[in-house]
Amino acid sequence: MTRWARFRAEDGRIGFGAFEEDRIAEFTGDFFASPRPTGAIIPAGKFTLLSPCAPSKIVALWNNFHALGLKLGKPAPAHPMFLIKPGTSVIGPGEPIERPIGYRGKIAYEGELGIVIRRQCKDVDVGSAGDYIHGYTCVNDVTAPEVLNENTDFAQWCRSKGFDTFGCIGPVIAAEFDWQQARVLTTVDGVERQNYPLSDMIMSPEELVSGISHDMTLLPGDVIACGTSLGIGSIRDGSTVEVIIEGIGSLRNALAPGAR
Amino acid sequence: MTRWARFRAEDGRIGFGAFEEDRIAEFTGDFFASPRPTGAIIPAGKFTLLSPCAPSKIVALWNNFHALGLKLGKPAPAHPMFLIKPGTSVIGPGEPIERPIGYRGKIAYEGELGIVIRRQCKDVDVGSAGDYIHGYTCVNDVTAPEVLNENTDFAQWCRSKGFDTFGCIGPVIAAEFDWQQARVLTTVDGVERQNYPLSDMIMSPEELVSGISHDMTLLPGDVIACGTSLGIGSIRDGSTVEVIIEGIGSLRNALAPGAR
Repeated sequence: MTRWARFRAEDGRIGFGAFEEDRIAEFTGDFFASPRPTGAIIPAGKFTLLSPCAPSKIVALWNNFHALGLKLGKPAPAHPMFLIKPGTSVIGPGEPIERPIGYRGKIAYEGELGIVIRRQCKDVDVGSAGDYIHGYTCVNDVTAPEVLNENTDFAQWCRSKGFDTFGCIGPVIAAEFDWQQARVLTTVDGVERQNYPLSDMIMSPEELVSGISHDMTLLPGDVIACGTSLGIGSIRDGSTVEVIIEGIGSLRNALAPGAR
Repeated sequence: MTRWARFRAEDGRIGFGAFEEDRIAEFTGDFFASPRPTGAIIPAGKFTLLSPCAPSKIVALWNNFHALGLKLGKPAPAHPMFLIKPGTSVIGPGEPIERPIGYRGKIAYEGELGIVIRRQCKDVDVGSAGDYIHGYTCVNDVTAPEVLNENTDFAQWCRSKGFDTFGCIGPVIAAEFDWQQARVLTTVDGVERQNYPLSDMIMSPEELVSGISHDMTLLPGDVIACGTSLGIGSIRDGSTVEVIIEGIGSLRNALAPGAR
């Protein structure tokens, strides 16, 4: 099973390849089409993982898990409900989440499954949507909840979730992944906070790709964050959040310590 | 006064230059840094105007005009309230607005001033924000209002305004532009529907760039749509919307005729 990673080598060069245990078998060519192995192996300690892709946008779902919708008293939607996190919000594994300057409020984590788009995609049906999925990654959909609800006339979804470093993705893109058997586990400083089954999703990855592709063109590398479920909460400056999905890996990001 | 245009030449080549009456003096190099004239003149009829830039995102303001806020009973916000329209929503002058497949509801126009960002911009103060503005363009912030309000629990700002072709910008970027003296005039099939002064803006272009740059990194070519004022409404299939701002030009886009 291929787990694609993007990396920065010691000499500053950015590359991608297949992540195998603790090393990377480098590939070249078009990441999303038919990449070819170069034969080079980058050993452990000689690279830094980057976000596994550089999305033009993250389409982030609201209310896509039965358990959370039930808790909040929100009926299941018939079409994907989403907001957009800009590409500038994206960071990769190990990179710090930065508190926005001047914001003293809570910062919340949301562990989620991310779908990575393989090729340009518009108005596709559910049956063919799988052809447009490159693979799956872990997402921490970081949120500033006091910004979200600051103005009672206008819910600031894009602003509260769009800050730089608030779109954590990685560590890899798992090309083959059986989401129906997997769970999302989120820990804060090692303590379990979320542990929910992906089988509880209201709309499946194929339904999400199809539905959203009827709303806008999805581009190679774009990420759909599938929404979260029970157990979201806030973190302190210096805390580390880990989003773990078996078959993909573990995405760790700390909220940078100290006020700015 | 330089009015920057992007164009497709007869041979398919894409270029940019200074728009002078009905011809283009071609430039080369970095559009946003120090472009140099090539000496070539592309005469009228030998080019098609494109969107004057290719933004990674449009940051679209809600409630940024006193007159509209007063009519809707919404107090003036203290910080820019916005949603994100994806780069895939952008079309240029003369390109058709396409009705989303399966959507039979109203399609609304909103004539607006657009700010085009010159260089990467994060956490800038109001005093220096002008250095990050490349110029100004006209925007038609097209909206599917029935989508916006379809779900009573979640206002679908990004979806209702993010459809492909719903971000009309152009025809040019005016490098020097005195927004305080200008008005936004919007016509539908030649009949005036909006005519409001930009001096009624709640937050000025410099305040918008500064405020939004504290929320996310703005990239060269990104567009801030300054919000609209009185007179918005819906259009029929086949109708032409024209957004006219003296000193910038006229942006015309028709809603493609016929249901899909």
